[in-house]
Amino acid sequence: MSEFIIATYDWVPQWPRGHVRDLRIRWALEEAGLPYRVESVPFRDRGPEHFAHQPFGQAPWLIDGDQSIFETGAILLHLGERSPVLLPADPRARTQAVEWVFAALNSMEMATVPWSILKFSGDQDETHAGKSFDAFVGKRLGHLEAVLAQREWLAGTFSVADILMCEVLRLVERFDRLTEHPACREYIARATARPAFAKAYADQMAHFAKAD
Amino acid sequence: MSEFIIATYDWVPQWPRGHVRDLRIRWALEEAGLPYRVESVPFRDRGPEHFAHQPFGQAPWLIDGDQSIFETGAILLHLGERSPVLLPADPRARTQAVEWVFAALNSMEMATVPWSILKFSGDQDETHAGKSFDAFVGKRLGHLEAVLAQREWLAGTFSVADILMCEVLRLVERFDRLTEHPACREYIARATARPAFAKAYADQMAHFAKAD
Repeated sequence: MSEFIIATYDWVPQWPRGHVRDLRIRWALEEAGLPYRVESVPFRDRGPEHFAHQPFGQAPWLIDGDQSIFETGAILLHLGERSPVLLPADPRARTQAVEWVFAALNSMEMATVPWSILKFSGDQDETHAGKSFDAFVGKRLGHLEAVLAQREWLAGTFSVADILMCEVLRLVERFDRLTEHPACREYIARATARPAFAKAYADQMAHFAKAD
Repeated sequence: MSEFIIATYDWVPQWPRGHVRDLRIRWALEEAGLPYRVESVPFRDRGPEHFAHQPFGQAPWLIDGDQSIFETGAILLHLGERSPVLLPADPRARTQAVEWVFAALNSMEMATVPWSILKFSGDQDETHAGKSFDAFVGKRLGHLEAVLAQREWLAGTFSVADILMCEVLRLVERFDRLTEHPACREYIARATARPAFAKAYADQMAHFAKAD
């Protein structure tokens, strides 16, 4: 089997380190024990070559042989076809995992990412928009809390859905928004205790630190 | 083959009619010529039975035999496995379609849905949050415009990715935000000219009108 290549930025500012989306792919490849290496692309000066791989000018993307794949959701489903550790082989169980992949990236991130942008941009908490996005995040978290209080992993066994949901929740926890959601916090603790997460996280931090 | 069942609300207010997500599933099933019927669930009073099918209390969901599936992205990939009209059978072409499914539901909707919530909630255009979300939407639309200026359908041939992206863009167009994005507008026109869209749209409008 040939080596996968993760393309990610050569450098990012301090704040997003530990949350850049190549972590999701590193984590999945570590869980599956699949061979890979990381290549850097410029954070500044994203040219036509960058947009040929990633039409929105973002990173990461994955190279698998002669195929280049963008969107971490698509990349994790692609890798899931190469390892039952990432996606169950049974069609019914697989569909359940895929439901939760979309729940993480659509139902949850649609609320949490805009909310985090407002949080990050400064003191927006008392504005109408700040309150309305906080209520939106709170509502989605409340529903997720009820699910996570009942199960260890979203689709029965650990899968790429848990990698994605944990990453979504880690960003929320960063702004101390999970104090009333103990099941979400315990879920993050369970997921980040996995050796594959620890390796992926340390490797991302080292990758960006190298460029300082 | 047994009939698919789409579960959607019995009624919604006027505003979201024509945009409720059962339209995405109706459209896919019409494209594929797969047999289905629609069942109503209460818009008000969503009880434990509703949450057992859809953990975030949303609609729609799909019943396929004894399996209930939530998240329109997961549902459309599930249906894609039953019809090459929805997802190409060739693995490489399929991965391309899946990339664009996630691009629609994560890269685009993460910008457009919060923006539409602000738009809908009234005169937010001049606030800091209003400007910042408008810039976010504008940036993503600009990148998508460059792609759509070069191709008829996102993944070479028509696929579920186009159903999802068209639905994302129709919401943006509703707020007149595509005046500077002719390729996006032409793409919507191409997609909505398909008989399967026209049938799905008319059926959704009739479904909700029946309950008034």
